[in-house]
Amino acid sequence: MKSIQQEIRVGFRYAVHFTTDVFAQSNPLLRDVIAQNDDHYPAKVLFVVDRGVDIHHDGLAKAIESYCLHNKDVVQLAGPTLIIPGGEEAKNNPRHIADILLAVHEAGLCRHSYLVAIGGGAVLDVAGYAAATAHRGVRMIRIPTTVLAQDDSGVGVKNSINAFGKKNYLGTFATPFAVINDFNFLRTLSDRDWRSGMAEAVKVALIKDSSFFDFIEDRAAALTSREFPSMEQMIKRCATLHLAHIASSGDPFELGASRPLDFGHWAAHKLEQLTDFQLRHGEAVAIGIALDSTYCYLSGFLAEKEWRRVTDLLLALGFAVYTPELSGDIFPGLDEFREHLGGGLTIMLLRSIGDGFEVHEIDKEIMIRSIEVLKTIDEQERAHVPVGRKRIS
Amino acid sequence: MKSIQQEIRVGFRYAVHFTTDVFAQSNPLLRDVIAQNDDHYPAKVLFVVDRGVDIHHDGLAKAIESYCLHNKDVVQLAGPTLIIPGGEEAKNNPRHIADILLAVHEAGLCRHSYLVAIGGGAVLDVAGYAAATAHRGVRMIRIPTTVLAQDDSGVGVKNSINAFGKKNYLGTFATPFAVINDFNFLRTLSDRDWRSGMAEAVKVALIKDSSFFDFIEDRAAALTSREFPSMEQMIKRCATLHLAHIASSGDPFELGASRPLDFGHWAAHKLEQLTDFQLRHGEAVAIGIALDSTYCYLSGFLAEKEWRRVTDLLLALGFAVYTPELSGDIFPGLDEFREHLGGGLTIMLLRSIGDGFEVHEIDKEIMIRSIEVLKTIDEQERAHVPVGRKRIS
Repeated sequence: MKSIQQEIRVGFRYAVHFTTDVFAQSNPLLRDVIAQNDDHYPAKVLFVVDRGVDIHHDGLAKAIESYCLHNKDVVQLAGPTLIIPGGEEAKNNPRHIADILLAVHEAGLCRHSYLVAIGGGAVLDVAGYAAATAHRGVRMIRIPTTVLAQDDSGVGVKNSINAFGKKNYLGTFATPFAVINDFNFLRTLSDRDWRSGMAEAVKVALIKDSSFFDFIEDRAAALTSREFPSMEQMIKRCATLHLAHIASSGDPFELGASRPLDFGHWAAHKLEQLTDFQLRHGEAVAIGIALDSTYCYLSGFLAEKEWRRVTDLLLALGFAVYTPELSGDIFPGLDEFREHLGGGLTIMLLRSIGDGFEVHEIDKEIMIRSIEVLKTIDEQERAHVPVGRKRIS
Repeated sequence: MKSIQQEIRVGFRYAVHFTTDVFAQSNPLLRDVIAQNDDHYPAKVLFVVDRGVDIHHDGLAKAIESYCLHNKDVVQLAGPTLIIPGGEEAKNNPRHIADILLAVHEAGLCRHSYLVAIGGGAVLDVAGYAAATAHRGVRMIRIPTTVLAQDDSGVGVKNSINAFGKKNYLGTFATPFAVINDFNFLRTLSDRDWRSGMAEAVKVALIKDSSFFDFIEDRAAALTSREFPSMEQMIKRCATLHLAHIASSGDPFELGASRPLDFGHWAAHKLEQLTDFQLRHGEAVAIGIALDSTYCYLSGFLAEKEWRRVTDLLLALGFAVYTPELSGDIFPGLDEFREHLGGGLTIMLLRSIGDGFEVHEIDKEIMIRSIEVLKTIDEQERAHVPVGRKRIS
């Protein structure tokens, strides 16, 4: 015998729930999610809350306590609720992951206990990384509170923190135990955060589903004026497409080279870094989408009419399609994207709305012209902002 | 729509190879392992070496360099080889994981690059944790150099470091890209390290395969006198049983409560901690096996004759079956084991040699009597150590 071939298959299941007022005593969802197991009860549960959410939701910590008390046969609050800052600060400063791990240790959580994180994508990412590594994995329940986290990052299989100046450098692929999207948390979002998460919906529509793109076009005014039914539909459809892609890609933990869900993301990641994270992820993604769509048009892949629909929709949603850093040192972003992905460069482009395809090289000259085109569009926009259209900068 | 049910299945494949002189220029194995992919070559490769191995294998770093140079169409040495201490120091001091991550970052490894770790189980564990989390996973090739790492820990799906005084507190389940067992590394092991790894072979034989137990009994003298053919057979059979269990358990990433491969391990983990890791893992496991086997006998699960075969084999292999710390504060180990496992207590016991079963509670009185019995056996052994039998303490 010269070698043993090992092959294992691992199945993961989780549900993404939609609700409002998750901590109302009359809402049995969180209790039911935990009680669905045949474990010994009560289960230990520890909460991590995004500081921004805590500030805007007076009495949240108290509501959590009351909820646990009300359901004490199933849920046992295992320690004080931890408040950590939101945004990239949560992922940049190693203190926060250390704080969460210490709290998990002190609470004596085991693999059948629950860490519940309530917040935007960054807080879910850092708490998710802690949950995935403590005891090699305690159960993680995500309660995303931003549009971006509810429709995209919070429903997927990744977690991470930043290190060595590289975004998401440390992390794992790990499925949550459950995701609970509580629409009520969206009410207190700033306009920037409300808008920002729509970029990922535009992205997934562009590469996967033209009818979803039509829907967003159709509801653009309702979405920007914060009409809830439209936003709830958008989030559900976006999350569904995102989940379906992960389940059907054949490579959910990205062992191969392709990451088709990352359309527009090579420039987006670099822009976040170049703006020192002053640009929100969704805002950067909107510019990245505009850039790669323009590149598709100038390269002859995408018809002009379709390209204009893309930039028009982004502008209609209130996104900028250009930022001065785009004319800066953006191209190293291609190699950083390749390195993070692994293997050769793979970039998703568009043949038409709803139909993505992959290329393995980028023509720098055409990309530079694409940036110029976006700069011009941006200048025209700034000169003539239509009444009622919101701008982010 | 109130919820979306997500279900994903992920497949992992890797091979465990057996060879000698892996870095001889005439040995194509490592080259072939890397070249089996359809990636762009040369692939970046970075090496981490256990200081103990480096000391005993003069010229290893040079041999690695020559090997990479000789195979430079496939393998590109991406940075200086990192030497880290072996044993629990590697896992206790967070500096070492930080050093490895920094080297991985500086070498610009991507998910399709390779981190090759050469050493005992502790070095493989810490390097494996770094590899599993950098970029959410760069490829890990393990070259285990101890009996324990070759027959057990190095072929499995776990990595970890210690934290908050808890063994293996931080880690992930992650399959290696490949494992290369090079028997030549065993030549320079101390007698303690040579012996220590046999405890896991006794363990897996006891719970899975009585004919393997017969084999170890049969070869006990050859194994303790360091005959290579017997040791190679023992390692291959043990690794095969270990791998088969992981693949067939239905729960390779231990999402449930059972860990049948951890027979004798609740006391073992605690003894390592109580002796400040002066006891090797395998030595602690031998005592843990003796303890739980004696418990099985005194509880009426295991026939006296079979029980005696277990303790006799451990003694014949040169293991101690008792250490004074066993009479100390050992019982918190049950709860720590339960916490690390998650859920309720689950302990594997024996009905007969080769036939394990699980229980969910332990009778403390019988366990205390079991400790007394082992103490007596140990005293008798110390009074009459047969000629030629080696003792570890």
